Amino acid sequence: MSLRLTILGCHSATPRSMAHPSAQYLEINGEHLLIDCAEGTQMQLRKFGVKFSRIKHVFISHLHGDHFYGLIGLISTFSLLNRQNELHVYGPAGLKEIIQIQLKLSKSWIDYPLHFHELNSNKSELILDSEKIEVRTVPLRHRIYTNGFLFREKPAPRKLNMEAISKHTEIDICDYQNLKDGKDFTGSHGTVLTNAELTFDPPSPLSYAYCSDTTYSEAVAEMIQNVDLLYHESTFLEQHADLAETTRHSTAAQAAKIASMAGAKKLILGHFSSRYKDVNLFLQEAQEHFADCELCEAGKVFAVDNQ
Amino acid sequence: MSLRLTILGCHSATPRSMAHPSAQYLEINGEHLLIDCAEGTQMQLRKFGVKFSRIKHVFISHLHGDHFYGLIGLISTFSLLNRQNELHVYGPAGLKEIIQIQLKLSKSWIDYPLHFHELNSNKSELILDSEKIEVRTVPLRHRIYTNGFLFREKPAPRKLNMEAISKHTEIDICDYQNLKDGKDFTGSHGTVLTNAELTFDPPSPLSYAYCSDTTYSEAVAEMIQNVDLLYHESTFLEQHADLAETTRHSTAAQAAKIASMAGAKKLILGHFSSRYKDVNLFLQEAQEHFADCELCEAGKVFAVDNQ
Repeated sequence: MSLRLTILGCHSATPRSMAHPSAQYLEINGEHLLIDCAEGTQMQLRKFGVKFSRIKHVFISHLHGDHFYGLIGLISTFSLLNRQNELHVYGPAGLKEIIQIQLKLSKSWIDYPLHFHELNSNKSELILDSEKIEVRTVPLRHRIYTNGFLFREKPAPRKLNMEAISKHTEIDICDYQNLKDGKDFTGSHGTVLTNAELTFDPPSPLSYAYCSDTTYSEAVAEMIQNVDLLYHESTFLEQHADLAETTRHSTAAQAAKIASMAGAKKLILGHFSSRYKDVNLFLQEAQEHFADCELCEAGKVFAVDNQ
Repeated sequence: MSLRLTILGCHSATPRSMAHPSAQYLEINGEHLLIDCAEGTQMQLRKFGVKFSRIKHVFISHLHGDHFYGLIGLISTFSLLNRQNELHVYGPAGLKEIIQIQLKLSKSWIDYPLHFHELNSNKSELILDSEKIEVRTVPLRHRIYTNGFLFREKPAPRKLNMEAISKHTEIDICDYQNLKDGKDFTGSHGTVLTNAELTFDPPSPLSYAYCSDTTYSEAVAEMIQNVDLLYHESTFLEQHADLAETTRHSTAAQAAKIASMAGAKKLILGHFSSRYKDVNLFLQEAQEHFADCELCEAGKVFAVDNQ
């Protein structure tokens, strides 16, 4: 079980040469995902050496430009690179129309299967359920329809206790899958060996929550309980809490309170407003409420392992 | 009279960290223009220190992504920067719809006057006629509807020959504008002093032609006769002339032949395909047909003065 998050951009609003807007590349339990896709994301992917043809699922939180203007370029580039694998895009209703009109007017053909999964529910939904992971929306409160996303690894099979198994000659290799699945073993004479005797607990599944953009919402904390890694936007500092409320964003202190309420193991902050010259102020403010937090930065990698 | 062209990007197809696609910033006779606007153009404008709030007119050649995917971001950024001045966008029909649907779905309001001038003619048209410049389309032959653009300074007023004027006390300061406009001076007794005696020729108006993307077309050369500076795409080298024909692009040799036929003073080459590792090959090939040519490169400035 492992999770590796590469920050491609973490600033708010307009892109500047050293301040790329929101985009993240997530590797989780062998799946390769992109979360938000601001203008310039494909250049950032190249810059940080991401083999981005592997990306199979793209999650767009909302239709503000600093979260999706790079998507049409990425979709086109995949086509120019002769992508064959399917691509799934999850985002607010309307996103499909935006992409399709551009492809139509440029007379571009996308040769790979491109699937849109348009979102419009205000309740948390299971939107991806693969063998390896599941992804749920985390409805957020912003100026327009917005979702965060909760990514969870699927539980791994139980680990065989080979020492214990070897003491019971009745157990055949064909029984191993049942043991991995948590079943007890019943011998030919009806003897029952409990699963707990024959297996070890697998590593706990890891989880990551992406919460941007949103005003302070305790409902979010409830939806992401015990998450291993939490990205929560912190556009403002407390000194501009009124502005955060008006524009439906959060302060660093609010992000930290959500992390604390959620029982998150680690918090990472981003979506910084350009009005602040020193982003370390975000860290200082957040750490007063939640100890284990870090600032995002383009190119920074956050890895969590649980072997 | 002066013309200053800053290359923001000059490579074809997908953006890479060191190979930005088409965008140019043109200052001509006091007007500030943007020509094409690929993804990342606003970052390039910032990188090269262009005061881009001055841009009043944007010209989009065609609706392939490597020529316009950055436009929505630029338009949004102008809004975030509280632009008040009007912005005019000239491009193929459909461009307005692409921009407007994105603004609508993101619930963004553009507070400044944004005017679209949609193009659909296959004949050269005068699309901008200001006090300082005029701009005409140069219909190109590409896979989709495409225009190049010919930018020309308006003729400057004639320069007063103060030495000659001072010899004629009858000429008042009120007569100067007529002299600048090329009129003769008629004294109170009907004596005529010709304009040529009292003024000098002004500097010749400068012109710049942007021709991208296009297959080889001699009609283009006719439309841009005697241009001072010509940008002509050269996606391929002659060794791939067949590919140039199929994809409706030009080779470096073809670009040079157009420059020669047009009697251009200088040729600049761009829109290089990523298949070539050494872009100097484009220069070598072009120079066999046209001596004064140079390669484009992001950040490079081409200046022409005529004082």
